[in-house]
Amino acid sequence: MLKEECGVFGIYDKDGFDVARLTYAGLFALQHRGQESCGIAVNNNRIISLHKGLGHVSDVFHDRELEELKGQMAIGHVRYATSGGKGVLNAQPIVSMYIKGQLAMAHNGNLSNAVSLKHDLEMTGAIFQTTTDTEIMMHLIARERLKTGRVETALASMMKMIEGSYSVLMMSPQKLIACRDPLGMRPLCIGKIGNSYVIASETCALDTIRAEYIRDIDPGEIIIVDKDGIRTIRDNVRSRQEARLCIFEYIYFARPDSIIEGMSVHEARKNTGMILAQNSPVDADLVIGVPDSGIDAAIGYAQESGIPYGKGLVINRYVGRTFIQPTQKERITAVQLKINVLKDTVAGKKIVMIDDSIVRGTTSANLVAMLKDAGAKEVHMRISSPLFKWPCFYGTDIPSKNDLIACKYTVEEMRDMIGADSLGFLPVERLKEIAPKSKCGFCDACFTGNYPYKVPSEDI
Amino acid sequence: MLKEECGVFGIYDKDGFDVARLTYAGLFALQHRGQESCGIAVNNNRIISLHKGLGHVSDVFHDRELEELKGQMAIGHVRYATSGGKGVLNAQPIVSMYIKGQLAMAHNGNLSNAVSLKHDLEMTGAIFQTTTDTEIMMHLIARERLKTGRVETALASMMKMIEGSYSVLMMSPQKLIACRDPLGMRPLCIGKIGNSYVIASETCALDTIRAEYIRDIDPGEIIIVDKDGIRTIRDNVRSRQEARLCIFEYIYFARPDSIIEGMSVHEARKNTGMILAQNSPVDADLVIGVPDSGIDAAIGYAQESGIPYGKGLVINRYVGRTFIQPTQKERITAVQLKINVLKDTVAGKKIVMIDDSIVRGTTSANLVAMLKDAGAKEVHMRISSPLFKWPCFYGTDIPSKNDLIACKYTVEEMRDMIGADSLGFLPVERLKEIAPKSKCGFCDACFTGNYPYKVPSEDI
Amino acid sequence: MLKEECGVFGIYDKDGFDVARLTYAGLFALQHRGQESCGIAVNNNRIISLHKGLGHVSDVFHDRELEELKGQMAIGHVRYATSGGKGVLNAQPIVSMYIKGQLAMAHNGNLSNAVSLKHDLEMTGAIFQTTTDTEIMMHLIARERLKTGRVETALASMMKMIEGSYSVLMMSPQKLIACRDPLGMRPLCIGKIGNSYVIASETCALDTIRAEYIRDIDPGEIIIVDKDGIRTIRDNVRSRQEARLCIFEYIYFARPDSIIEGMSVHEARKNTGMILAQNSPVDADLVIGVPDSGIDAAIGYAQESGIPYGKGLVINRYVGRTFIQPTQKERITAVQLKINVLKDTVAGKKIVMIDDSIVRGTTSANLVAMLKDAGAKEVHMRISSPLFKWPCFYGTDIPSKNDLIACKYTVEEMRDMIGADSLGFLPVERLKEIAPKSKCGFCDACFTGNYPYKVPSEDI
Amino acid sequence: MLKEECGVFGIYDKDGFDVARLTYAGLFALQHRGQESCGIAVNNNRIISLHKGLGHVSDVFHDRELEELKGQMAIGHVRYATSGGKGVLNAQPIVSMYIKGQLAMAHNGNLSNAVSLKHDLEMTGAIFQTTTDTEIMMHLIARERLKTGRVETALASMMKMIEGSYSVLMMSPQKLIACRDPLGMRPLCIGKIGNSYVIASETCALDTIRAEYIRDIDPGEIIIVDKDGIRTIRDNVRSRQEARLCIFEYIYFARPDSIIEGMSVHEARKNTGMILAQNSPVDADLVIGVPDSGIDAAIGYAQESGIPYGKGLVINRYVGRTFIQPTQKERITAVQLKINVLKDTVAGKKIVMIDDSIVRGTTSANLVAMLKDAGAKEVHMRISSPLFKWPCFYGTDIPSKNDLIACKYTVEEMRDMIGADSLGFLPVERLKEIAPKSKCGFCDACFTGNYPYKVPSEDI
Repeated sequence: MLKEECGVFGIYDKDGFDVARLTYAGLFALQHRGQESCGIAVNNNRIISLHKGLGHVSDVFHDRELEELKGQMAIGHVRYATSGGKGVLNAQPIVSMYIKGQLAMAHNGNLSNAVSLKHDLEMTGAIFQTTTDTEIMMHLIARERLKTGRVETALASMMKMIEGSYSVLMMSPQKLIACRDPLGMRPLCIGKIGNSYVIASETCALDTIRAEYIRDIDPGEIIIVDKDGIRTIRDNVRSRQEARLCIFEYIYFARPDSIIEGMSVHEARKNTGMILAQNSPVDADLVIGVPDSGIDAAIGYAQESGIPYGKGLVINRYVGRTFIQPTQKERITAVQLKINVLKDTVAGKKIVMIDDSIVRGTTSANLVAMLKDAGAKEVHMRISSPLFKWPCFYGTDIPSKNDLIACKYTVEEMRDMIGADSLGFLPVERLKEIAPKSKCGFCDACFTGNYPYKVPSEDI
Repeated sequence: MLKEECGVFGIYDKDGFDVARLTYAGLFALQHRGQESCGIAVNNNRIISLHKGLGHVSDVFHDRELEELKGQMAIGHVRYATSGGKGVLNAQPIVSMYIKGQLAMAHNGNLSNAVSLKHDLEMTGAIFQTTTDTEIMMHLIARERLKTGRVETALASMMKMIEGSYSVLMMSPQKLIACRDPLGMRPLCIGKIGNSYVIASETCALDTIRAEYIRDIDPGEIIIVDKDGIRTIRDNVRSRQEARLCIFEYIYFARPDSIIEGMSVHEARKNTGMILAQNSPVDADLVIGVPDSGIDAAIGYAQESGIPYGKGLVINRYVGRTFIQPTQKERITAVQLKINVLKDTVAGKKIVMIDDSIVRGTTSANLVAMLKDAGAKEVHMRISSPLFKWPCFYGTDIPSKNDLIACKYTVEEMRDMIGADSLGFLPVERLKEIAPKSKCGFCDACFTGNYPYKVPSEDI
Repeated sequence: MLKEECGVFGIYDKDGFDVARLTYAGLFALQHRGQESCGIAVNNNRIISLHKGLGHVSDVFHDRELEELKGQMAIGHVRYATSGGKGVLNAQPIVSMYIKGQLAMAHNGNLSNAVSLKHDLEMTGAIFQTTTDTEIMMHLIARERLKTGRVETALASMMKMIEGSYSVLMMSPQKLIACRDPLGMRPLCIGKIGNSYVIASETCALDTIRAEYIRDIDPGEIIIVDKDGIRTIRDNVRSRQEARLCIFEYIYFARPDSIIEGMSVHEARKNTGMILAQNSPVDADLVIGVPDSGIDAAIGYAQESGIPYGKGLVINRYVGRTFIQPTQKERITAVQLKINVLKDTVAGKKIVMIDDSIVRGTTSANLVAMLKDAGAKEVHMRISSPLFKWPCFYGTDIPSKNDLIACKYTVEEMRDMIGADSLGFLPVERLKEIAPKSKCGFCDACFTGNYPYKVPSEDI
Repeated sequence: MLKEECGVFGIYDKDGFDVARLTYAGLFALQHRGQESCGIAVNNNRIISLHKGLGHVSDVFHDRELEELKGQMAIGHVRYATSGGKGVLNAQPIVSMYIKGQLAMAHNGNLSNAVSLKHDLEMTGAIFQTTTDTEIMMHLIARERLKTGRVETALASMMKMIEGSYSVLMMSPQKLIACRDPLGMRPLCIGKIGNSYVIASETCALDTIRAEYIRDIDPGEIIIVDKDGIRTIRDNVRSRQEARLCIFEYIYFARPDSIIEGMSVHEARKNTGMILAQNSPVDADLVIGVPDSGIDAAIGYAQESGIPYGKGLVINRYVGRTFIQPTQKERITAVQLKINVLKDTVAGKKIVMIDDSIVRGTTSANLVAMLKDAGAKEVHMRISSPLFKWPCFYGTDIPSKNDLIACKYTVEEMRDMIGADSLGFLPVERLKEIAPKSKCGFCDACFTGNYPYKVPSEDI
């Protein structure tokens, strides 16, 4: 299962809301973007305090922690570590003291020039206590801040130095600040609840707290919220056409109920299914999705093909937690613990099974075998994304070529390894059709190798 | 959301399996039957030891706990407290010393004559340290054991004294024993992995550990597994026709991938949707299910009606854990934290929304409002069970009449309160059609008041 | 280090005190009597609720737990398991339901006829969920209760059936009840704070909550506190002369600031030192005590002998907690982690070192070696108790003869094994002189084999 | 109770010891120097890993944590926060990445020019994630490291910039490095176990792990241990006469079994008692010490005066843990929960009571009252240190003048407030006599205002 790096949420209160509890609810809605650690920083009359820990939002925060986080502004973060080590020291937000006082920062994305930025900083004596890109950005802002009168100007200067994906939330003693990288690689949107502004990685977080959606933050834009209201700095803003939003946000990362750049994620996923039905049709009795992420595409495939949609696999709802694998002797796979087949439903049937992607191929092979064991006559695997052929440097854990099955085998070889009767992928040339309502350009580097920033050759 | 009382799992090993880890995996598969507490007792060379605690299986058991639970037999339990207080003292299995040594017991169900049994025991000096029915049964077995040479004979005698639902697992120093109440009100099945017998509440637990399903335990049957193999005591066995399996196991409690009395739970749920489509048809654009329990019936409704099946609601996968409600000020409902609407999918459409039941009606009202807010033109609510009119005394938390909306209002009044454009229930007279492959009689007392055992009038 | 079994504390409030917090403070003062588990039960308007857990009082109880324990009566318990297994199920108080409602019980001591009582109960069908004597007593009371109108009468009847040491606290819906066994083997006293009665194992618990000491409960006496005040049942009371208070309470178990049967524990310990100085004099430069329990006797020895008292050993104050032993490679003993020598103080000196007892002799050998390593010229070991020659059946963990060094070796052999220059014990014939203010008879069975109750021969 | 800031322990293994377990044992011996948080960093083949947490050593480290800390070098830290906030982010060691790779650091002491150092660093863009002096030192070393080829040279340069007390342990990929500030304000010693060097705050840590004491590190000295053995850098070394060791280490902070600069701490404390007996004699029946820190001086007073030494107060051994204060209603003081009087021992007697210091006077007043309540005829209070008149800037929490009773009242007024019959302090002019074996100069600024470094006037 591929993993997203992070999600962010922030609020500047003008209504007397409990900012920590709203941030908690917002992070809860963004939990799918990171389950490893989480944190909330609040600004109470210009003093920033912080609680963070390892685990889910509901594990790290209880009434006691939330009671102690009173304030008028808050930023929060959920994290899955792609770059940067694990452990609570790397959890975010990070709160630092610098020449102008406290600064809290949380960030979703990955800097592709982090190594050289860090080296340059170390060459002037900088020390690093975490392995996060956030800390690199904080160093750069602290240094730019020496040259300028405002933290947002320092931020704008920093944005010219860094490359990669970043949706950032910051909190200074007096301001809530957000920015999105100039290519808009990760989503970030702004909403309003009462008179209070809210900023979140996805619209589902706005819905959860009943905030009204205003708009997506523009690629390269800086938003500042303070006592005087909301302002924007557009020095680094680029056009939507130049933008390179990660197409995999639609295919897998984002929640289906989120709307990114005007396009419903669920509808985009249904579109992938429809395209698959057009490009890889098959004569079958039932279309099923691998839960949860293959369900939406399966519904699209069924609608387009006219083959009935059904449920052939059941997911154990309790898998989010740590689970101890039985020992070798018992030969129980992780997939088996998590997913079970509806035998009576699939037995004797020709099945189309839709999943969002194939990385190493082991999960797919397991599922095909389970369906066949249950009596399925044929299993036709359809994948709602193109073949993964290139690693990602922008905040997901798509691995290096050595670990990508599609770099080593043909589709026919993959079909054979998986044991499916046929195997079809979303054609890369139809990728842009999945989000017709979006005016945004896309990053599809993991499928095409067409990277938006220069990549050190040894890293691919 | 209605809640099931419990799930049980047991194994008698002949293959050198790690019985605690298999029980752990089995309980993990049965987690939907009880999330409040869990426990595993193992029998290691005739010495029984126990670990239990509050929380999910993956919270209570870690490598350390499992390492200390070595043995050749194990029984496990997951619990949601319907009767009996909360707290770890009421967690199961319960391990007692009696005249013949240690006895471990775990049980799913509810005794309807518990009060009088307890009173009779107290009148002879019995003391009770828990509020579980399990402890009552242990007292009765201990007393019957004085009259007979075998624990299974004592169990058979006890079964003649107690009324209500019970699927019981017991472990004596030398035997694993299971029994199901004479009306077979709760499910219980037997399987085999290698040469080792496994007993579980549902077949999904057998699937998860790759055990082969053998058969359902007969209503009233006692199964004994020991070093000499497997035996059965059939003194209390009644015919399948006389049996009164809880019909709500099919409608809501059991996992859709389980097969009970020969009938797939998923298929039974699809059947409820098909019947609803026949009895409560409507002109609409999309059929959606309330996740997770309304999905299966929605697929059936869609297939029968020809209206496309779609996804209109998204559930937050992380709701299983404790979640702290934001304060009043923020006006966020529990439903909202858990479920969000796919706006672009439902906007402008006539929607059929299927849920498994209506207890108080508040959740339904919330969901209808959310769909309408998102722009749905019409919302037609269909419920895949009949009207709840009577409380349950057999192990579910269907409440007293005062809390049942269907006892106080007509369907039309309910429709109005919920805000739906139409409202339809599964007709009680077609209930038996949902599980055509089952030869079993059903308990439908919650819909009909037709209780299998005498109920003290004041309790209804 | 020998260990005491338990301590008890109870209060019946008439002043509006927070009974749980006073019980918490009382148990904190009694923590030395048991560090393995603890619990508090409160009676709030006739409903009894309970919290207990493994660990020290300050580990198990925090503000949250204490807040939930509101009431007008409370009993509490600290426990070290001598008989009965470990684990929270064996923690006390135990709360049971019986024919007359709830009953909470906590107890310090050990029944010497527990095995036969348990067997008799099992022969009538009783089941046991713990391995505590408390549960046996609850069974007996429940059965006696059927014959009599009052719980205290049932208690009085039960006292005629049981043998051994027991200081018991009970709480029925309306009464706080205490009793002490007819030989008064364990201490139990009564005090008053405002108009509220308090009962505790030792007077130090009264001091800690500023309660006024009233008197020791008489051997065999039952005290009942209810809304009408305080009453006593004296059916089983025996004279002080007949009583057999555990002499080791003075020597080691009790806190030095407690006063038992009119005699200060500290002064009794000083007396042991004085007697040792008379019976085992030696020419030396410094008298030191093994902390903490040898300090008091060392002060007495110094005063009587005229040899200066000093500090030669320092104890690490943090040893109460679990400590992980370094591995073999590092050759660090438990004694070394806990105790260190004051080198400059002992170097070149002839030392008298006083400890309370010798069980296996390893600790003494370690300490003598440490002193000699530090340059002590001579080490004369003095023990403030006679030789342990018999196991204890009344609530301490003095082990069987096989583990008692004094059963296998002469004093001269022991001296040689320990490496001391001389070794002296408190003469058994002067034991009674250590507590001259007490009018009480003593149990000295561990020194003399003179057991107050019949002991099954195979147990010695 | 005054509190020390920190303790440090480090080891460079050449014998195959388990460095984490030895560090654990060493920190356990130093637990009295800091109970708030602790941590251990190990260097395993040049990779440094870290575990730290809030609480005692035995709370933070268990077998699992220690198993994961394998390596050939380790440094550890126990902390009580005097400067720097609480919380795990401020726990030590701190591990940073800088231009030359990883660096771990732990430190005991307090920089008196921290504010200006931090300001200067911020003016060049530095950011701070903790509020510790350790982080300031890491910044300075990272910057000095740019100018020099070796980390120890950078350390030597840094030592010229900082003022205050510091005993530092560092670990680079290849070296274990220690240094002590040029005035030697905090203790630091070196020992050897097998062929492995050990460095610790106090000798008691060497004793606990059976390491042989070699010598105290010289004021200003840097010690480097690596694969080639041990080296020293003496650029900043000053003579012992110039040194300013904190005299309060002898009076209160250090463990009595430690030897600092050749002088036994216990003997130094006994000397304070002897001096008090000479300067503030009184006719009395018994000398007692306030446990634990007044015991040693009381023994000295008794020996010098000829008045018998005794035990008049008992401390509850379990106070190290968090304890919840009963509510107002119960009027129980913290002192009472912790200390109780031996009534029979003090009643009717004239008592000399020795304590180590008076800060606010409340504890003393409480103790005097408790003794008088118990019947003491007279209570003569003797304090084994001079009057606190000045705050400390070097790592202890002696408060500002406003909170020091001795700044506001005469000795006679204090005696009256405390309720003692007489009150005597150690004469400041005899301070140097308490440690005659030490050739070291002392810092006695808290008594004299004679600060070794310039103090910003507003801070006093």
